[in-house]
Amino acid sequence: MATLLLLPGDGIGPEVCAEVRRVAAALVPSLVVEEAIYGGASYDAHGTPLTDEVRDRALASDAVLMGAVGGPKWADAPRHLRPEAGLLNLRKAMNVYANLRPAYCFEALAGASSLKTELVSGLDIMFVRELVGGVYFGEPRGIDVLPDGQKKGYDTALYTTSEIERAGRVAFELARGRKNKVHSAEKSNVMESGLLWKQVITELHKREYPDVELEHILADNCAMQLVRAPKQFDVIVTDNLFGDILSDAAAMLTGSLGMLPSAAIGDPNKPGLYEPIHGSAPDIAGKGLANPLAAILSFEMALRWSLKEVEAADRLLAAVKGALDSGARTRDLGGELSTVQMGDAVLCRI
Amino acid sequence: MATLLLLPGDGIGPEVCAEVRRVAAALVPSLVVEEAIYGGASYDAHGTPLTDEVRDRALASDAVLMGAVGGPKWADAPRHLRPEAGLLNLRKAMNVYANLRPAYCFEALAGASSLKTELVSGLDIMFVRELVGGVYFGEPRGIDVLPDGQKKGYDTALYTTSEIERAGRVAFELARGRKNKVHSAEKSNVMESGLLWKQVITELHKREYPDVELEHILADNCAMQLVRAPKQFDVIVTDNLFGDILSDAAAMLTGSLGMLPSAAIGDPNKPGLYEPIHGSAPDIAGKGLANPLAAILSFEMALRWSLKEVEAADRLLAAVKGALDSGARTRDLGGELSTVQMGDAVLCRI
Ligand SMILES: CC(C)[C@H](C(=O)O)[C@@H](O)C(=O)O
Ligand SMILES: CC(C)[C@H](C(=O)O)[C@@H](O)C(=O)O
Repeated sequence: MATLLLLPGDGIGPEVCAEVRRVAAALVPSLVVEEAIYGGASYDAHGTPLTDEVRDRALASDAVLMGAVGGPKWADAPRHLRPEAGLLNLRKAMNVYANLRPAYCFEALAGASSLKTELVSGLDIMFVRELVGGVYFGEPRGIDVLPDGQKKGYDTALYTTSEIERAGRVAFELARGRKNKVHSAEKSNVMESGLLWKQVITELHKREYPDVELEHILADNCAMQLVRAPKQFDVIVTDNLFGDILSDAAAMLTGSLGMLPSAAIGDPNKPGLYEPIHGSAPDIAGKGLANPLAAILSFEMALRWSLKEVEAADRLLAAVKGALDSGARTRDLGGELSTVQMGDAVLCRI
Repeated sequence: MATLLLLPGDGIGPEVCAEVRRVAAALVPSLVVEEAIYGGASYDAHGTPLTDEVRDRALASDAVLMGAVGGPKWADAPRHLRPEAGLLNLRKAMNVYANLRPAYCFEALAGASSLKTELVSGLDIMFVRELVGGVYFGEPRGIDVLPDGQKKGYDTALYTTSEIERAGRVAFELARGRKNKVHSAEKSNVMESGLLWKQVITELHKREYPDVELEHILADNCAMQLVRAPKQFDVIVTDNLFGDILSDAAAMLTGSLGMLPSAAIGDPNKPGLYEPIHGSAPDIAGKGLANPLAAILSFEMALRWSLKEVEAADRLLAAVKGALDSGARTRDLGGELSTVQMGDAVLCRI
């Protein structure tokens, strides 16, 4: 029997995770859904955003689904104990090195994008963001006081051949099941780690994926092209930092941040980590206003990638589309449905 | 007598700089306009993209205006001799630490944006990008071969208190003459240099600019907000790398990359470096199709910031607006004017 560990976390996390629970019960009754405390909530209870016990439970489950972490309440917590540190530590502990972030525009929502409808109608980009390396984890890093009293803050952006290769493989494999096109984004004209990135992707492509179309693109140009003509992209593979920024820009192309799921995967025999792209949204937390679709679609990715319930995933995706087509809209989409009502709109179509 | 050094460079650089020359002659006849070889053109002639002689002439002039550098022709040149290296070396030699990049939407072009017209009509953002520090120049950096044959590529993202302060001051000063609002963008939740950035900007604000409204924003959220609701921004101050990416995304909001100028300034008594945001566009180089307005507007910034010809700058800006209002459009704007014809459209309004 497969186990899903829910980590509701902070802010709107518990509300959107409650909808995932209802969907899971209706769709895959055999799935064991457990829950653990995490993020700011865990810091308040245990003095750390991620206890060893929760980390071990995550590693022992088949998939982990997170709600959201953080909020102004913990802004002054020591840096290594802030909710975000819990998230980074969990990613690292689970070694989920490839973060899949779709920027997919549901037809019913194309009008809600900032971009002109014709530029986003049919949009379907998959980002593969390297998730456990780069400047997020590189050493040395720190803030030192210099002899003259000034401070120096520094970080190390670092990639090795194998770190780049494994992220690249995920991108090329994905592209084969899609439009067969990969853009690799870096700043190889400025960064040594970016130059290595480009070289390794080039060689991997030549050696193992010559059938896939590959284009190298500078990260600044990629940001621009995402706004200019996003439909030119199929799969975009990039590093941890550029992936963070570019996928957030792309997220807005689809109309609402409340719609976007993500999957972080690593070794196929190990659990994946699934999370909505949105944050904890403290301003609307506890009010029943949050859009649960990003969390529900993250569960859809968990079904597909970790739980191997592809048929259930297809049914869930169809139910979400059906709900949107019928006009179901939470506030972020310009409607009036509550979190639970949006959950209902999906549930009644499963 | 003031001197402007033109560095036409590569690709469309010479064509757009020729229009600047014509505009300068008509507008400020007393300005001495010189020219020097630079970028790929200099690499071909002298084996280096920036000779010591040209660097010294740049330092001795009152302002430097660059066309564009680089192109596929030099992709295999040794890294430190590629045209882009010449650009980075020139920025560093001139110590132009603050890169001003307006994302300004000309009313006549609001319809040309990817974004819905109401989101960009009236858009007027000024980026202040730190330009001579950060991961662009930090040491150590390199690609090493590890004992197991793997490679490791690494860069150092580094900022000191004073580097952050001087960029921050430019932003706060600018804001005072605008809508009095500064957003400071970083990844302080992940990077130590980002945390120092946030701390230094916070203290500078408290100490010297408490009258200016300051908001801290994470770089990923900033990318998203630029697409969602760009008119919330007035001045955005950020580091070299985030500035590169965010200002390029914002550039596309204004309709065409062919429109956007930039100014790189440092010590007020030293020359500034002015350049269009666009690249060398090898695909259309030599065909007379390039939009010269980005270069002409870069000259407008040079008049304003380095040459202290504010009245001439105002006249030039009005001439550009007049040309656009009358329907003058190069190909990138959906029209049919050539580079020279667009130059004429501005010239006849000076
Ligand atoms: C919360 C933060 C540490 C995180 C990141 O930068 O990775 C977030 O922005 C994300 O993209 O999941
Ligand atoms: C050409 C390149 C080195 C440069 C940069 O990254 O700074 C360019 O993208 C820019 O923004 O001027």
